[in-house]
Order: sequence, then C-alpha cells, then structure tokens
Amino acid sequence: MEHLTPISFDKVDITGGFWADKQKLNRDVTIRAVRDRFADTGRFQAFACNWKEGSDEPRPHYFWDSDIAKWMESAAYIIAKEPDAELEKNVEDVIDLIEKNQCEDGYFNIYHQVVEPELRFKNRDHHELYCLGHLIEAAVAWYNATGRDRFLNILDKYIDLVIRVFTVEKSSSFATPGHEEIELALFKLYRLKQDKKYLDLAMFFLNERGVNEENIGEWCKGKYHQSHLPVRQQRTAEGHSVRACYLYSGMADAAKETGDPEMLAACQDLFEDITKRKMYISGGVGSSNKGEAFTIAYDLPNDTAYAETCAAIALSFFADRMKEIEPDSRYADTVEREMYNGVLSGLSLDGKAFFYENPLEINLADHTRHVSVNDHDRLPITQRLEVFGCSCCPPNVTRYIASLGGSVFSVKENAIYVHQFMECAADVNGAAVTMETNYPNDGRVRLTVAGAKGKKLYVRVPGWCKEYTFSAPYTLENGYAVIDVDGDLFTVEIDFVMKPAFYLANPAVRADAGKAAMMLGPVLYCLEGVDNGAELYDLTVDTSAAPAIAYDPCFGVNTVALPALRTDKAQFASLYRLTKPLATVPATAKFIPHFAFANRGESDMTVWFRYK
Amino acid sequence: MEHLTPISFDKVDITGGFWADKQKLNRDVTIRAVRDRFADTGRFQAFACNWKEGSDEPRPHYFWDSDIAKWMESAAYIIAKEPDAELEKNVEDVIDLIEKNQCEDGYFNIYHQVVEPELRFKNRDHHELYCLGHLIEAAVAWYNATGRDRFLNILDKYIDLVIRVFTVEKSSSFATPGHEEIELALFKLYRLKQDKKYLDLAMFFLNERGVNEENIGEWCKGKYHQSHLPVRQQRTAEGHSVRACYLYSGMADAAKETGDPEMLAACQDLFEDITKRKMYISGGVGSSNKGEAFTIAYDLPNDTAYAETCAAIALSFFADRMKEIEPDSRYADTVEREMYNGVLSGLSLDGKAFFYENPLEINLADHTRHVSVNDHDRLPITQRLEVFGCSCCPPNVTRYIASLGGSVFSVKENAIYVHQFMECAADVNGAAVTMETNYPNDGRVRLTVAGAKGKKLYVRVPGWCKEYTFSAPYTLENGYAVIDVDGDLFTVEIDFVMKPAFYLANPAVRADAGKAAMMLGPVLYCLEGVDNGAELYDLTVDTSAAPAIAYDPCFGVNTVALPALRTDKAQFASLYRLTKPLATVPATAKFIPHFAFANRGESDMTVWFRYK
Repeated sequence: MEHLTPISFDKVDITGGFWADKQKLNRDVTIRAVRDRFADTGRFQAFACNWKEGSDEPRPHYFWDSDIAKWMESAAYIIAKEPDAELEKNVEDVIDLIEKNQCEDGYFNIYHQVVEPELRFKNRDHHELYCLGHLIEAAVAWYNATGRDRFLNILDKYIDLVIRVFTVEKSSSFATPGHEEIELALFKLYRLKQDKKYLDLAMFFLNERGVNEENIGEWCKGKYHQSHLPVRQQRTAEGHSVRACYLYSGMADAAKETGDPEMLAACQDLFEDITKRKMYISGGVGSSNKGEAFTIAYDLPNDTAYAETCAAIALSFFADRMKEIEPDSRYADTVEREMYNGVLSGLSLDGKAFFYENPLEINLADHTRHVSVNDHDRLPITQRLEVFGCSCCPPNVTRYIASLGGSVFSVKENAIYVHQFMECAADVNGAAVTMETNYPNDGRVRLTVAGAKGKKLYVRVPGWCKEYTFSAPYTLENGYAVIDVDGDLFTVEIDFVMKPAFYLANPAVRADAGKAAMMLGPVLYCLEGVDNGAELYDLTVDTSAAPAIAYDPCFGVNTVALPALRTDKAQFASLYRLTKPLATVPATAKFIPHFAFANRGESDMTVWFRYK
Repeated sequence: MEHLTPISFDKVDITGGFWADKQKLNRDVTIRAVRDRFADTGRFQAFACNWKEGSDEPRPHYFWDSDIAKWMESAAYIIAKEPDAELEKNVEDVIDLIEKNQCEDGYFNIYHQVVEPELRFKNRDHHELYCLGHLIEAAVAWYNATGRDRFLNILDKYIDLVIRVFTVEKSSSFATPGHEEIELALFKLYRLKQDKKYLDLAMFFLNERGVNEENIGEWCKGKYHQSHLPVRQQRTAEGHSVRACYLYSGMADAAKETGDPEMLAACQDLFEDITKRKMYISGGVGSSNKGEAFTIAYDLPNDTAYAETCAAIALSFFADRMKEIEPDSRYADTVEREMYNGVLSGLSLDGKAFFYENPLEINLADHTRHVSVNDHDRLPITQRLEVFGCSCCPPNVTRYIASLGGSVFSVKENAIYVHQFMECAADVNGAAVTMETNYPNDGRVRLTVAGAKGKKLYVRVPGWCKEYTFSAPYTLENGYAVIDVDGDLFTVEIDFVMKPAFYLANPAVRADAGKAAMMLGPVLYCLEGVDNGAELYDLTVDTSAAPAIAYDPCFGVNTVALPALRTDKAQFASLYRLTKPLATVPATAKFIPHFAFANRGESDMTVWFRYK
C-alpha cells in the first residue's frame, strides 16, 4: 500500500476567509496573550532553574516544560510564515536557558531539577517524557522554521540519556510514559533526521506499553494510561482521552513507518470505536471529568461533557495521520469536525481566553441548585478563562491554528489530494494549487492547478454534503472525487450544496434521545439563552420550515433562525397537567455556531434541541 | 373557622383489597423483618445502655432511639387492631430498659448516656430532641393501644427536664432541635393529655426557630435546618426535606391549635411551594442527595432523585394535617399521591426490603461508566436493602401503613368527610360507614352510612379524576362533593372513571421536557427494562392508542400496555445521521406501577417517556 505524504503547512498560504482571520488573530493576539499569561505565572522564569523551597517564585509544576514547549512550537510555526523578531527572541531566550541548565548527562526538566531531583524517572505520572516529547516537537518546528539545530542538539543529548536509562540500563521506575506524547514526537524527529535510534525508541515505548507494566497506576487497572493491554491488542478507546489520542497518533505513525498490519488494524478499530461510539457531534471526546476519560460506549452527557480542547486536537492529529495511510474521507471528515467545532470552541472570539472543557449544554440554574460550595464540581465552567493552572489547552490551540494549512493537501505518486477547503495558494510538490472559496459559509470551491497535467486530483466530498456538483468528470473513491488534470492550467469548480442539516444521534445515546442537532456545512450550531431566553429545553424547533440564514461578522459564519414553539405556561396551574389539550406559543430559534458559545456573557446553551 | 377532627385509624377497619393486603404483609412480615434487622445490628440491645469503648457490642448511633421508637409505635398500631403477645412483649421489654436506665434527672438517650455524655444538649446535630419526639409518638400510640401509661410517665419526666433546660435555664448549646420532630410529637401529647406545658414547649421550639439561632450550622446559612428565618416568615421549602416536612407538620398543628393566621399562611405557602414547584409526580420531595434537600424550583432530576421515603411520609403527614384546617381536596390528593407512590415505592413487594432513595429513572449503564469506585455516589442504589446504617425509613413505612386508616375520614359538626377510598368499615363518631370498592383498580365506590340522617357527606373528588358520577344529588365545595344524608341507612354509589391519564410537567422542569408520565387513577406507572428492553429513552409511546389493561396479582394493581415505536438501529451506520428519513420498528410499552419497580432484579426504569 502506497502512503500519502502531507504537504507541510509552510507550503500552504491561507490567503483569505475564515481561517486567514483566525490565523491573524492567533498571530496578533493569542500567541502573545498566552505568552504573557505564562510569564505572569512564572512559567518562562522557571527555565532559569533557580527555584528553591521558600523562594518567592512560584514552584514549577511538572507539566510546565510542556506548556512552554507547545508555545515555542506555535511561535516557530508563526515565524515560519512571517518573520517576528519579538517571538524569535522569546524562543531563543528559552533555548538559552535550557542549554545553560541542562544536566551534565543530558537530563533537562524544570520541575525535577529543582523540586524533586530524587524522583528523576521515578514517578510515572510526573510527565518527564511527555515534556520531552513536546520539547522535541518544538525543536523540530524551530529547525524547520529557522534552520537552526541548537535546540535539536540539546535534546539529542537528553534523548540519548533516555535511550540508555529506559532501554539499556532499565533503571527507571517505569517502562513507558504515563502520559503519551514522546512517541509521536520521536516519529517527527525520525522523519526529519532519518536516524533510526529515534524510531527505535518510539517503537520501544509502543512495544513495551501494557506488557509487564510494573507501575500501571491504580485507576481503572491501567486503562487510564492505556496500559491495560499491549497496544496492538487495544481495540477500544480507554482512559484519559488526551493521552489515548496522542498514543494512537504515535501508533498511526508506527503503522505508517513500519507497515505493521497489526498496528494498523488496532488504529483502525480505535478510530472506529471513538467516532462511532464515543465522540460528541462536536468532535469532543473524553465524556467524563473523572479521569478526563473515555467512558462506556454511547455515554455522551451534554451538560457534564468534559470534551477537553486538547483531546479534540489529539483526535484531529490521529485522524490526520490515518488519512495518510488510507485516504478514506472519514478521516479528513473528522479533522474538519475538530477544526470547526471540537478545537475551535476552546478559544474565545477575541482570541484571549480558553475553555479546557467544552460542554454541549449549559443550564445556569444547575449552578445554583445548592448554596454550598463543591457541589457542582462536575459541571464545566461557563465562561472561558485567560489563564488556568493546568494550561495545556491554550498553547495547543495556538500551534493547531498556526499549522492548520498542513492538513489541506497530500500527495502520492501522480496524485494530489485535497482534504480540506479554505482560500489558499500552495506549492504542492511543484504544482501550484489555488483554492478560491468562501468555505465554511458557502460550499462553492474553485480549484486551479498549474503544472500537474496528467496527474489525478483527489477531492474529498465532505461527509456532511449530500448534494454536490463538479464542473469536470469524476469518479468516487473512498469518499474522494477523482478527477483527471487534463491541462497545464486546470480548473475545476465544485459546489458542495450547503444548507442546514439536522442530525439524530444513535438511539443508544440517552442524552440526545428525542432531540436533533443542526449543522450548516461543517459547522455545528447551538442555541444560547442570550438569543432565545431561558429554558431552551422547552423550545421545539420546526426543522421543516425555511431557515433564515444571515452572515454574522462577529462569528465569521452564518447564523440560522427557524420558527419554534414553546409550551404555554399559563395553562400550568399546578406542577403536572394532562398532555392534552396543550396550547403553544410561537417563538424563533436563533442558532449560532457552537464554537462561539459563551462569548456574550453567561448564558444557557444547548446543541441538542427538541424538534418537529 | 371550624376545623375537622380526624377519625383515628383504630376506628377504621380496612376489610379488603389493596390496603388490607398491605396491612397484612406489614403485620405478618415487615414489622418482624425490621425488628430482626434492628436486633441483628444491636439497636434493641443498645437500650441496656452498657456499651463501653472497646466492648464487642456495636457502638450506638445517635439516631438509634428514634429507629426503635418508630418500630414501637408501629407495633402499637398493629396491636391496637389485633392482639399480638410477641410484639407486645418486645415493646414492654424496651420500655423496661428505658425505665431502668433513665437518668435521675429524667434524661434518656442511648447514645449520649454511654458514648458522649459530656455532649448532652451540646450538639444540635445529635438528634436528642428528635429521638425524644419519636419516643413521645411511640408512648402516645402505646397508651392508645393498651391503656398503659408507664411509657408516657417515663417520658414526662424527660420532657420536664427539657422544659427546664431549654426554656428556663437556657443552658443547652442550641435553642431549637437540629432535626425537627418533637414539635409534632408534643402536639399529639397535648391532644391526649390536654396539659398546656406540652403545647407551650412545642410553641417555644417553633417560635425560637430562626430567631437569634446561635448554632444554625454552616450549611446553606441555616436553610439545612430550616433556621434561616422565623417560621412564620418561611414561605419556600428549604433544606433537608424530612426535617422540613416534620417542621411544617408541627406548624400545621400549631395553626390548628392556636388559630394563628400567620402560622397558617406560612403553612399554606410552604405547601404551595412544595407541591407546585418541588415535588416529583411520585410525591417524592428533596431532589438532591446533597443535604437530602429541597433545591431550587423545578429542579427535579429523575435519575439522581433523592426523594427519601421518610420525606414522602413527612409530606403526607403535613398534607393530612392541613386538610383538617381547610378541607380543600388538594391536601388529601397529596396524601393519596404519597400513599400509592412516594411512600410505597420504599417497600419491596415481599415486605422485607426498603429504599431510602426513590428515583424515577434508572439507567444501569450509568453505574458502569467508570471502573473506579466512588464515582457514582450521586446515583441512588438500584435494589432495595434489608437493612442499612441509617434506617429511619423502614420503621417509618411500618407505622405509616399500620395507621393508614386514620387518613380516611374526618368529622365536623354535622358533617362526615371521606378523604380516601378503600374497602373499609368505620365507626365515624357513632355513624357506621361502610365503603365497598376495588380502588385503586376500579374507581367505583359504594358508600353506606348508617345513623347519620340529616348530616352532610363530603366526598373528595380525586384530583386525577376528570369524569365521575354520583347516584345522589351533590354540589361541589373545594373539591369535595357534598351530599345530604337523607336516610338512616343511606347509600351513594360513585363512579370515578378510571383510565390511563398522561401528564406533562411544567415546562420549567428540564428533566421532563418532551416527555409524559402515566397514571391510572392514583397510581403512577413506570417502564422497566425487564419488560421493555434496554434504552427505554428510545421508546416513543402512542398515548392515543387503546390501552390493554390487566390485573396483575404480583403487583396488586393493573398493568397497562400500549403500542410504541423504537428507532430502527440498522440505519445508524455511524454515530450521527440525518433526522429524515427515519425508520422505526414497532414495540409494546408495558407499564407497571412505579411503587413496584426493582422487584424483579436490577433493571433500567423510567417514569417519564417520549410519547406521541
């Protein structure tokens, strides 16, 4: 089986429209807002490694390396597209500190070097290898952006130490990382440097996982850390959802690099289990705050949804890798679902604030059920925050948006794949591809390909689209329209007819029983109290009526209004009354994109609504 | 305003039908099962007051006096109707121990005398006055059943101590009981002995509550103990629901005995707040396990419902008292709702096991969301238990069933009231009243009244009944049909037409949005998985179809079957699909009485269902 090769984000210029606006916001506001919050909280300063018990500085946390690493990776992606001396200095300053404070033997970790040096490689939950993974991703990105290999060389020394400790001496207290991430990072490094030691270390961690694990953690018999079974035997998504999807991403890398059919089969089954049984319609995964974890099949409560932003990103990574192994459109469909929904709801419209949890329903009254504190700890917060203690999500969003163009195109011999749709111009292995579109607000796309005569163009037909036209002849293959590029300057016009579509969940999903959700193209919608009043659960939306669709510049996409009915409360003299006869009062249901909820103050919100 | 006087249960013989069966089960099985479990757990033995630290005996709990007291009260009610030497000896044995171990100054409490004597009247949450209240109720019942006043005299000495400590010396650490109950007990004693000191102590506790309370507890600023406001200013039901409804019962007693209009107005508003905003359709109250408490209006989640059996009993007591002050049918309607639903679901069909919490929905899958323990502590248990640590409910059920006949009739000058319907023969102030009926399985009732010529008969028209006939002329007054008794042997035949009725909750109740519940006469129904398969939330019941109604001797009432539809799962290749077109498969929805749920093994269950 011939695999696809993705076209890197730096070869793809997003030239206008929805994602160009988001990238500009990311570059102008978000990357700096996250940097400033990280500075305020002592995360940058911590790289000086001079914290002492009793000092005024905040005590470093054992995941702070990863926060800064993801921020550095984000800065690298931004600099790769457009020089920025300020961001460049910020990154080089951190690399200076890492270089200065790296241990003789190569070890580097701001927490363990100053807080608990005696616990080096002793506590599986202390994220050392996770932090190293993120540093590796940052160093690879920095090399690609600047051509400078200092950061890579620093980490190479650390990686050699890890190879020795884990695979030769076996002197660590655990065999594999408690929080996966280093696996996929090592594959990135292997692809860059083609040194087999990185591949071997990644495969070591994958092969050892769930095999004679001495220290799998008590929670869920190892499922929390995906250590319950050898990875090739894992067939259902279990445990902490970010860890899981980073692991599965690394497994997909392994399947691609090694051609291991068992590894690929495990990835396929895990992807199926997630997307057919454990994924919110928003793309959110990990439905419980207990362990931030996958639970049982079809358990997708909307109001207590955890659906961490990082988990949506991680699932997007996994899907994006899978599409390179087998270009079936369901993978890029999932990437698209995450882009517009699961990931994007994590970011405020002003680019400064973040959700860790992304619920699909908010009932403010639930937050006042009790006067006492600590009763509603299971409910997600209702407004985004500018900073929070565990700030994995903010820099994950910045790197995701900055490198988004890397998910649009792939190539294989004699073929160009178009997976995602956005206004852009790209150098696709020498062919100049231009995409003109107002997607996601309009399904019309004009693709122009120069210098690819005789090749085949594979254009994904989005899963949401039931009606479409191509201006050129095509056949369908695994959800992609296959078109012959029959000229040096070839143009095809596509119309993915976009209108509000109403979805049901599988009847096994209790939380959604009797309700529908609306999408317009790839964008999921919701109802907010600020537009529709309280008690959204009493609205019955007429999905057969003609929708009023209007572009809203605040949201960057269309809003949709439909007629609806509310129950006439006047007829309820008591708490319960007969179902018939029942009077209703007309109302309008105004839908906004789910990614934009909670941007206009606290409000009730629901994705799933009663309908007729 | 002339008040009604209830006809005591001992003047009412329940001669056949549903409640005769329940009373027989109570007498033959339940009272003995509870006794044996209480003996097994050391509760009877604890009255010997010889526990010491380090001894083998179980350490008494500070509510054990009340458990045994309610059991004694139950035994008294049973003995009052039918001699039982064994139960009589059990009760006298406990009275012997109380007499033997009572302190010199009158104090008696099995916990504080042996475990924490230094905390006598020092901890408001230690239930001393609550325990005394239940002992008083038991002593009154024992006197009424046997004519023996030893138990009353023992307690009189204790009450004198309480009067001195609380109202004269004011040497206790708190002014009013943390768990209300003694107030209503003192009114019972006052009515029996007509000694004003009991009335005065009851009024002292009511008048002091929420007034300069020094030690109101931290939870909810005193709402937990109903100490947030003086009782006459309380207008919304707050805090621990059993405490609240015992308090409100005492307040109703006070309103009746003193004619205080403010007290009555508070009772009326509290009753309205509960029944119009905070009561499950089952009659269950206290919707949260956090504080076993009332929460905010319309917050009635079905699966996490607390709805304690004792709270249903307490609300029934409150409603039963209110009907004597103002005979509006909504009070006896509430008593009836509790009798057949809120209270009765607390007892297994075999009479041996009990629910503390009475949910209106069970989804077994929720109990397996996580492998780890302690995650689903908010979910009620799914099977009744034969004993539990806090066993307030079992002996509360036994006394409730044993004395149920006391809710059927009242009198006032020249009038006989019939509030409840069951096969019985009663001595109603000299008039012989016979009721022949198969209620609740049939709405036909034949009332025969001998020796009441010239009086008026007030017969409640049940709130559930929209269609009825009387064989004699009548007028309607506050929900009662008023009929002239125009002969020495007067008979009236009534037909309360009984057919399945479907109810909606107020649109503000989120948990019930889009769903209906079914009642047949006064009995609430539910769907169980054992009859209907899993995923009950996918069933859509055709409420317009002709129901198949069949008597089921296991339940003692009818079951009801209706056609229904399920979603065809075959059309769900993925987790989400378009709403249309949608294929359904026919099913049958079999309804059983809610009080009988969880008697055939663990099962999903729901009261509220989707309907068309």
